[in-house]
Amino acid sequence: MGKGSRTRQAILKRASTLASRVGLEALSIGRLAEELDLSKSGLFAHFQSKEALAVQVIEFASGAFVEQVVKPGLAAPRGEPRVRALFERWLQWSRAGSGKGGCVFVSLAAELDDRPGPTRDRLARAQREWLGVLAGCFEVGIAEGHFRKDAEPAQFAQDVYGIYLSLHHARRLLDDPKAEARARSAFEALLAAAGPAKRRRRRPEAR
Amino acid sequence: MGKGSRTRQAILKRASTLASRVGLEALSIGRLAEELDLSKSGLFAHFQSKEALAVQVIEFASGAFVEQVVKPGLAAPRGEPRVRALFERWLQWSRAGSGKGGCVFVSLAAELDDRPGPTRDRLARAQREWLGVLAGCFEVGIAEGHFRKDAEPAQFAQDVYGIYLSLHHARRLLDDPKAEARARSAFEALLAAAGPAKRRRRRPEAR
Repeated sequence: MGKGSRTRQAILKRASTLASRVGLEALSIGRLAEELDLSKSGLFAHFQSKEALAVQVIEFASGAFVEQVVKPGLAAPRGEPRVRALFERWLQWSRAGSGKGGCVFVSLAAELDDRPGPTRDRLARAQREWLGVLAGCFEVGIAEGHFRKDAEPAQFAQDVYGIYLSLHHARRLLDDPKAEARARSAFEALLAAAGPAKRRRRRPEAR
Repeated sequence: MGKGSRTRQAILKRASTLASRVGLEALSIGRLAEELDLSKSGLFAHFQSKEALAVQVIEFASGAFVEQVVKPGLAAPRGEPRVRALFERWLQWSRAGSGKGGCVFVSLAAELDDRPGPTRDRLARAQREWLGVLAGCFEVGIAEGHFRKDAEPAQFAQDVYGIYLSLHHARRLLDDPKAEARARSAFEALLAAAGPAKRRRRRPEAR
């Protein structure tokens, strides 16, 4: 990585943290230049426009998410263990962001959902890809016999997303210390309900 | 209601819709005056400061939520029917907002979670009250024998919140036409899992 590229990465890292705190709308090139103690013209040379910066912030965050969550999660054995590993890494991602404005995707989703344009499109694509990974790994789990044949991967993905969003909400807005423990319980309940009928029926006795 | 009070309500209604679209940070008194074609000084007379306006926007939205969701929901028979009625009204609230910036509470939660101050406190209080209503009605359902004795009301509330947030995300950011159907399925699964053991164990055969 050349010096220019390293500088760009450093700027995007800072921009991504800032965006999760104040939003993309408030993330002007001027404000970013001030935070980074760089010249505004220097930043313009890197990003040209506010919108180009916003799209690249999402690309940067998506790249970090793939490295920290998707890749290590996919390294786990196929089926239920992989689904669990992805969720575990995702919780780590949520915790890592929690001192710094929270998960950048949650912040930006609420901000961009009614602002049509390339930035919203890029974010929606990133989110669909991640839901697709969750659904795909769950589907493999069905093929492996870890989950019921009639379980629906897209339903599972939307459900897990809800657990994650609710954790973010309870932890960050409500300062609820039990938020993560409840998210884990919800995830276990979801897997238990998706388990094959035999295991499911055995659960009440196993408690 | 006097003329001054009606004007104030009309301003707050518009401000609440605008806040759910652009956020409270971007909701300046100047911008609101422009949207409403009122003088900036007139608006200042009503709200004094941007922060006072923000707090009152949340109070206004909370009042509307109580009228449209909480009160009619609580009118249903205690226990499971009441929990269902609250969820149904909540879905209506979500749909009603969906052409106009979405649920104002979801938008503001993501914006305010890391902005300490009276506005965030007011929002957090409103959200805790609503989660408390959900948990309280669920608890009555346990007493009525509609739900398991060992089910946890606070867990239920966080879980239902997740279903709602994920619906908002899938519908508004991802334009997923199945979002609401999946939210309903998730809610049914949650109630089924919370049901008394006898009913739960009978479920696989009943399918």
